[in-house]
Amino acid sequence: MNEYKVVFLPDSSTVTVNEDENILDAAFRAGISLKSSCGGTGSCSRCGVIIKKGLARSEGVGKLTREQLSKGYVLACQTYPRSDMEIEVPESNRLSQHQVLISEELNNHMSTHTFDPLFQKIKIALSPPSLDDHTDDSSRLFSVLRKTLNIEHLRLNLETVQKLPRILREGNWRITVSLADIKGCYEIVNVEAGWNHRNYYGLALDIGTTTVVAQLVDLETGESVGIEGTYNKQAVFGDDVISRIIYAVEHKKGVEQMQRTILTTVYELITTLIKDKNINYEDIWYVTCAGNTTMIHLFLGIDPEYIRLEPYVPAFNSLIPIKALDIGLAVNPRAMVYCLPGTASYVGGDITAGAEVIGIDKQEKISLFIDVGTNGEMVLGNKDWLMACACSAGPAFEGGGIIHGMRAMDGAIENVDIEPISLDVHLKTVNNKKPIGICGSGLIDCIASLQTTAVINRTGSFLAFPTNKRIRITEGEKEFVLAWAGESGNSKDITISESDIKNLIRSKAAVFAGISTMLKTVGLALDDIEQIYVAGGFGKYINLADAIKIGMFPDLPLEKYKYVGNSSIMGAKKILLSKEARDDAEQLTGKITYLELSVGNDFYEEFISALFLPHTDLKLFPSTTEGLR
Amino acid sequence: MNEYKVVFLPDSSTVTVNEDENILDAAFRAGISLKSSCGGTGSCSRCGVIIKKGLARSEGVGKLTREQLSKGYVLACQTYPRSDMEIEVPESNRLSQHQVLISEELNNHMSTHTFDPLFQKIKIALSPPSLDDHTDDSSRLFSVLRKTLNIEHLRLNLETVQKLPRILREGNWRITVSLADIKGCYEIVNVEAGWNHRNYYGLALDIGTTTVVAQLVDLETGESVGIEGTYNKQAVFGDDVISRIIYAVEHKKGVEQMQRTILTTVYELITTLIKDKNINYEDIWYVTCAGNTTMIHLFLGIDPEYIRLEPYVPAFNSLIPIKALDIGLAVNPRAMVYCLPGTASYVGGDITAGAEVIGIDKQEKISLFIDVGTNGEMVLGNKDWLMACACSAGPAFEGGGIIHGMRAMDGAIENVDIEPISLDVHLKTVNNKKPIGICGSGLIDCIASLQTTAVINRTGSFLAFPTNKRIRITEGEKEFVLAWAGESGNSKDITISESDIKNLIRSKAAVFAGISTMLKTVGLALDDIEQIYVAGGFGKYINLADAIKIGMFPDLPLEKYKYVGNSSIMGAKKILLSKEARDDAEQLTGKITYLELSVGNDFYEEFISALFLPHTDLKLFPSTTEGLR
Repeated sequence: MNEYKVVFLPDSSTVTVNEDENILDAAFRAGISLKSSCGGTGSCSRCGVIIKKGLARSEGVGKLTREQLSKGYVLACQTYPRSDMEIEVPESNRLSQHQVLISEELNNHMSTHTFDPLFQKIKIALSPPSLDDHTDDSSRLFSVLRKTLNIEHLRLNLETVQKLPRILREGNWRITVSLADIKGCYEIVNVEAGWNHRNYYGLALDIGTTTVVAQLVDLETGESVGIEGTYNKQAVFGDDVISRIIYAVEHKKGVEQMQRTILTTVYELITTLIKDKNINYEDIWYVTCAGNTTMIHLFLGIDPEYIRLEPYVPAFNSLIPIKALDIGLAVNPRAMVYCLPGTASYVGGDITAGAEVIGIDKQEKISLFIDVGTNGEMVLGNKDWLMACACSAGPAFEGGGIIHGMRAMDGAIENVDIEPISLDVHLKTVNNKKPIGICGSGLIDCIASLQTTAVINRTGSFLAFPTNKRIRITEGEKEFVLAWAGESGNSKDITISESDIKNLIRSKAAVFAGISTMLKTVGLALDDIEQIYVAGGFGKYINLADAIKIGMFPDLPLEKYKYVGNSSIMGAKKILLSKEARDDAEQLTGKITYLELSVGNDFYEEFISALFLPHTDLKLFPSTTEGLR
Repeated sequence: MNEYKVVFLPDSSTVTVNEDENILDAAFRAGISLKSSCGGTGSCSRCGVIIKKGLARSEGVGKLTREQLSKGYVLACQTYPRSDMEIEVPESNRLSQHQVLISEELNNHMSTHTFDPLFQKIKIALSPPSLDDHTDDSSRLFSVLRKTLNIEHLRLNLETVQKLPRILREGNWRITVSLADIKGCYEIVNVEAGWNHRNYYGLALDIGTTTVVAQLVDLETGESVGIEGTYNKQAVFGDDVISRIIYAVEHKKGVEQMQRTILTTVYELITTLIKDKNINYEDIWYVTCAGNTTMIHLFLGIDPEYIRLEPYVPAFNSLIPIKALDIGLAVNPRAMVYCLPGTASYVGGDITAGAEVIGIDKQEKISLFIDVGTNGEMVLGNKDWLMACACSAGPAFEGGGIIHGMRAMDGAIENVDIEPISLDVHLKTVNNKKPIGICGSGLIDCIASLQTTAVINRTGSFLAFPTNKRIRITEGEKEFVLAWAGESGNSKDITISESDIKNLIRSKAAVFAGISTMLKTVGLALDDIEQIYVAGGFGKYINLADAIKIGMFPDLPLEKYKYVGNSSIMGAKKILLSKEARDDAEQLTGKITYLELSVGNDFYEEFISALFLPHTDLKLFPSTTEGLR
């Protein structure tokens, strides 16, 4: 088979590429992560690159424009080298750092638990053996630990027994013992001679489809040492869990490749976290991990195939802690990794984390917890009962399927205000950079404003008065100009089209239909919800009044709503620091009844009814629809 | 450093040897196991080899005779090559196959237990998931297993979860599940698609200092497939546990080397057991292992250093089952290895096995269990209390420290009868081969006969009437000729000397002193013992009447004695086949009070009193001393 040298510019990264490896995969090997929402099938056309030198065979051009083609653009996923090449990767088509929600504003909502981390090092002194007291070394250690910690179940692994006799005597019967919780039992994962005063840490992980957040925590004090977030490098294999699963299943060693990719993502986060802090990878002794079910399967290298096939069954929802060494995570090889239990294929450990953080199972009040991302996952209930469901909201809230859609990165429009009559637009962008696209919260604002200003009607269609230059028809489709090329960061008009609006309406309808289907199933009305917790990176920037106005969230007083930020990382951290919280989370998961929206209930009907702004049944949105009636 | 080619003859095995590696170690690498009772320190002089060609540097000649030296003999352990060499290894100085006691004559003594092996494969059918029943794969499996087996604690390892979804669907929801007991919990160590009818096996191991016995058992039927025994290849590092420990501790990677050596020994036994039987190493799924504490430490690669240093503390007495893969045993890598718990540094899992086999802790009658080898280990008690001790009997019973001593191999004298007055000798040898030495049971017989015929007195000294040609003085020492050169298998006179006799008296005194010290500690007399179980390879051939006559065992009616054969392998097998027996053994060990004979009791005094034939206190041996009074 022929091999060619391919140089990626401006990085100058060079890799050797077989004639049957596509440029998308080659770029990934070269350390360059290209956008690839569709997972390399040629349909999303986001992985465009420019051939500067050399020959290639392209199997398709997707949605590349004539202009792009004339500039030498090809789709990386459809292109195979036929000579040595130089390829330019445009900045706009690279995956880049996200604005990741890592604040912890929910602290005042968090139910409290005893500080009792899942890992601890304890310093103990043993009485030396004598002819009158010739207990073996292991039993001697056990009996002191049982007394000190008041625990019954202890376990010693072979590696530790092998060195125990020497360590005990080297330390002159003073040793430092590393204890890791493995659900109902402590394992002695290490012994050190003498009293070791080196700090030790735990890592809380939130593995999202789009973003990954890692928080490093001092396990002695419970204090956070740092928190970092980045995009999930798996994004080059597709934007959503379905395309990731398809990639993993249809490629040889696809699961392995996915696992390696998320491990690399986490490795880089850890590297950033420990930098300049005199902390080594080996100082991290326990990992708790929250994520959706697919992400956790891939993190552990478990076949996710059946998650996407009816009847949507995961390999597991709950697992005992596993050794970091067994998955190759860049922490102490003896560290344990505990993945928060999930409820079903589409309600994972991230939702458990959120439900645990708000303590939904401890409350008298009927509460609704909503985590909106590509999927809208929600938990409804109180201390007596809990129900969860997931509705496929689609990628619109994360910028997917929207012409100028993007994630909440620099230059993303996150706030839109349109003046009546003049239709002048006031924008707020992430970090106040010049606008280059629009993210989820901006889209919601935008649609609410377009409706208020009567640019669109209740179905999301443009009304027929193109008397303003911002309303125009391009390539046969109506669109509204949010920012002119002269104001934008990419010298292009930033617009929102009628089909963008319809996409977003479908997304918001899915969320609302999920809520109302659950309520119907348990025989409650919208008014019966006493508290609503909104979580997710998305939740941070959302304008709640506008989300209610477009009929995404129930029309309840704003004081019933609480932002909870990234409750997934918060829950992972909470559990890292408290065995009690871990036990709670396990119990909570056990109590949840999962409602499968695709069968035997009213979801589809509710969805159709919600495909209006705000809804076909205006009585459900009394506060917001006054102006429309 | 210079390297030389050394050829061992007649094997023609060739190895390259550094100038600082001795010939003993080189021979071991070449696959030739030389005798080396002292562990290569030059003191036992058993590793003599003959230099046929080449130059060498010898650091000592030990007890080699002038005649041997003139023939080119050197001590392998003291000799280093200085050129390419050819070395002859005399047959007499090789470790060879033992007559290993592997019968199971105790079957009628064995307390019975439910057949419930520590490993089982079960064939189950699961109902496939549906939209109404979307339990995850792991929980689905758990719930069927819990129902089928009526067990609560189940565990799934990462490796199994990783393949579970595929296996379930490949087998169309019929699968074969491999379950290994890990004390109070079952681990699902494997899943296979469909109902797999391949047989599966367990291995019971008895790892003795001198011999290793392995029994292969069909875990579905409980039937024995075969049993094999061989010498422990570690013998090249010394005859007894002490020299093994010293070797392990004083050599770089000594523990590793010891572990590798016993693993090789076991590997060869397994290879023999599965040969021509359509059984693979991978078909062995569980291993139970009984052995003395030092042997088990070395088997698991655990530092045994402190076993031999006061206050004689082992690294562990009891351990949870470990993975075969973690020690590198030649069975299925997912197999678990369970080592029977021990009581102390010198009362190990082999004694637990024996005590469990006879069910000493279930009996009303006060029983004494004795396992005689290099150490004499014993357990005394009944269902209400148990006490154990170990007395260092020395190597005499195994032929050590006796000029013509040998183990119970072909040609070993195992039975001696001496006629009064004429002193004609009638011998029985192992497998009726021409005599080449004398083993433990022969020695006991011999001393009893010499005493009966008044050749020796009660202290073991020869009486002054050398009127028979069999009684003579060689190199200043009195000796008795058991077989003349013309009758023997090695053309040498086979004799027993006064110091041989004194050595044996010290050994038998240690055993008797152990028994009487235990009795004294609990305030019982010899007569209070209601049953005596004699175990060990040694026990098989022993003439009990003679052992009583020389004062080794208590003077109790012979019907109180029972041979139990190799109770160590029997116990290991019993536990392999019954969780109940395993639980019993664990409990039994917990009940034993260990009596350390080296401190605060009357052992030394008892020992001195027992240095007579049969004892200073003749009243203790009424039946045997009538003729002497």
